[in-house]
Amino acid sequence: MFMCEAWNKGLTLLAKVALIGWITVALTGAATFAHADEPLPSWNDGSAKKAIVEFVGKVTMEGGADFVPPAERIAVFDNDGTLWAEQPIYFQVQFALDRVKALAPKHPEWKTKQPFKALLEGDKKTFAAGGEKALLEVIAVSHAGMTTEEFEGFVKDWLATAMHPRFQRRYTEVVYQPMIELLAYLRGHGFKTFIVSGGGVEFMRTWVENVYGIPPEQVVGSVGKQEFEVRDGKPVLLKLPAVDFVDDKAGKPIGIQKFIGRRPILAFGNSDGDYQMLQWTAAGSGQRFVGLVHHTDAQREWAYDRDSSVGKLDKALDEAKAKGWTVVDMKHDWKRVFGFEQEKIFGGISK
Amino acid sequence: MFMCEAWNKGLTLLAKVALIGWITVALTGAATFAHADEPLPSWNDGSAKKAIVEFVGKVTMEGGADFVPPAERIAVFDNDGTLWAEQPIYFQVQFALDRVKALAPKHPEWKTKQPFKALLEGDKKTFAAGGEKALLEVIAVSHAGMTTEEFEGFVKDWLATAMHPRFQRRYTEVVYQPMIELLAYLRGHGFKTFIVSGGGVEFMRTWVENVYGIPPEQVVGSVGKQEFEVRDGKPVLLKLPAVDFVDDKAGKPIGIQKFIGRRPILAFGNSDGDYQMLQWTAAGSGQRFVGLVHHTDAQREWAYDRDSSVGKLDKALDEAKAKGWTVVDMKHDWKRVFGFEQEKIFGGISK
Repeated sequence: MFMCEAWNKGLTLLAKVALIGWITVALTGAATFAHADEPLPSWNDGSAKKAIVEFVGKVTMEGGADFVPPAERIAVFDNDGTLWAEQPIYFQVQFALDRVKALAPKHPEWKTKQPFKALLEGDKKTFAAGGEKALLEVIAVSHAGMTTEEFEGFVKDWLATAMHPRFQRRYTEVVYQPMIELLAYLRGHGFKTFIVSGGGVEFMRTWVENVYGIPPEQVVGSVGKQEFEVRDGKPVLLKLPAVDFVDDKAGKPIGIQKFIGRRPILAFGNSDGDYQMLQWTAAGSGQRFVGLVHHTDAQREWAYDRDSSVGKLDKALDEAKAKGWTVVDMKHDWKRVFGFEQEKIFGGISK
Repeated sequence: MFMCEAWNKGLTLLAKVALIGWITVALTGAATFAHADEPLPSWNDGSAKKAIVEFVGKVTMEGGADFVPPAERIAVFDNDGTLWAEQPIYFQVQFALDRVKALAPKHPEWKTKQPFKALLEGDKKTFAAGGEKALLEVIAVSHAGMTTEEFEGFVKDWLATAMHPRFQRRYTEVVYQPMIELLAYLRGHGFKTFIVSGGGVEFMRTWVENVYGIPPEQVVGSVGKQEFEVRDGKPVLLKLPAVDFVDDKAGKPIGIQKFIGRRPILAFGNSDGDYQMLQWTAAGSGQRFVGLVHHTDAQREWAYDRDSSVGKLDKALDEAKAKGWTVVDMKHDWKRVFGFEQEKIFGGISK
């Protein structure tokens, strides 16, 4: 809807990339992509991968000066733009928009009421003019006025059917393969992996366990207010149209303190919304790893940073350079971005 | 301060109990207390222990009709009155009172200002007349206006020095040995154990890992508002004198949903403040275990329920009887209440 042109362009480019990939593999042998014992197989050898492996080596070496006991190996990851994509719009916002469309037949008044009118008519300009207020109204009807169980059902139904406009894949497939490998690599070294995202905690919890291997109780996110009610003898939790906590910017270290209660030793983000979380992590004593995913790959994904409306990365990028944080250059550091990239050609190599 | 008479009486009784314990052991052999392989050694054989062991057997039997995968074996425990004692007053309230006393020299104005004046003069009646407002003022000065790290230090200092008035033991020793064994028993069977308490989450997180084996990220509790600030280039979290979330009564299932995001299959409480958490747990599908610690032992601990100002157990007790929840009768179901009970006699048996 928002990016038809880019989408077509993207598909064309994707075909080219796939072809290049095929030639590379034909020349070097498919084994390049499938070293089972090699850590982080979708990462190119380079400074980012080196920094990760060295950090993990240091904090897990028993008797070493930098050893950190497993209980304290807390690793936190932003989600949108760090573990899965966030373009052309945050996927959860797309869910909210789709939900309004699905609800529209039951709300004839929306035909004349903003921001719903603009949304249903595809009038992007008017909808955008409504700003944050319009978005909050959409979130109120798509995320509240139902029980937590009903909401979970709506999210699951959406994930099972909705397609990402550019890749024509389920949203849960538009996740970064190198980051999935990193999560598993860390857990394999005794880390406990958490999501700390501005996204809604109940939206994420429906799918992150299957996709990232992160259980619901290790997801920190924005939360709406809820009410406990007994209906016909059965207790339910009602989602109310009111914000309880926004887990973004300065809210991220607060969310970490509130939900986890222990300062992470590793944090990964991709935008200025993650800046305070990275600062908070970096300021702890001993070895710390602070990483940024830098979106530099317009071919395979997107290229954006300082001027982007979604996932703006400006201050945190300067700070990363000043402080020696690890900046992952998506284009150069990642052998592949998504698990589905070579799937069609090499059947099953990505799973 | 509040219970000198009861305390003296308690010590006398304790001496008697210890003597009886010694005679029992002399007759039956110390091995009675130390079957390493036997689960829950501080529990008497009876319906409560039987119900626990049967439940764990059912949900962990692979291939069985009631099998629950480890990831879903969420067990939640209230803290005050369920894992550690809560008499003569909640231990965290005692911490707050002691903190005010420690701060008094820096606050000469408290000599004439209520509720501090009453508190410092030991004028219990006037302080009590101040009700919840007075208590909140005390909590504001004892729990806010400092960084999270400073607060952690104050709690640790207090725990290292303060003594429980009746038992003359550190507060972290006034914990129920049978419940500690239950936590370990559940973890040994793949459960993830959580605290879900009305107490302050940051107060509990300073000590529960050492005492219960429950890491900070598995503690749900009441929370105050916080602010992120950078001081001299160093990020800190400031504790503000404002309540963010009260994890009590209907707040407990909300807290479970917010912090854990998965419905427990086992819940233990001891008061009406736990009622909704128990209801919420019981209402899930499949096998559920719902337990109540019933304080019936004035000799070794306290006996209270329906009329108690602290830990009132009334509605939940009726519901437990109606629904067949497991009511643990402290006097009859627990071989010993505290780890220190036989310590002096059998040197080290409790550790």
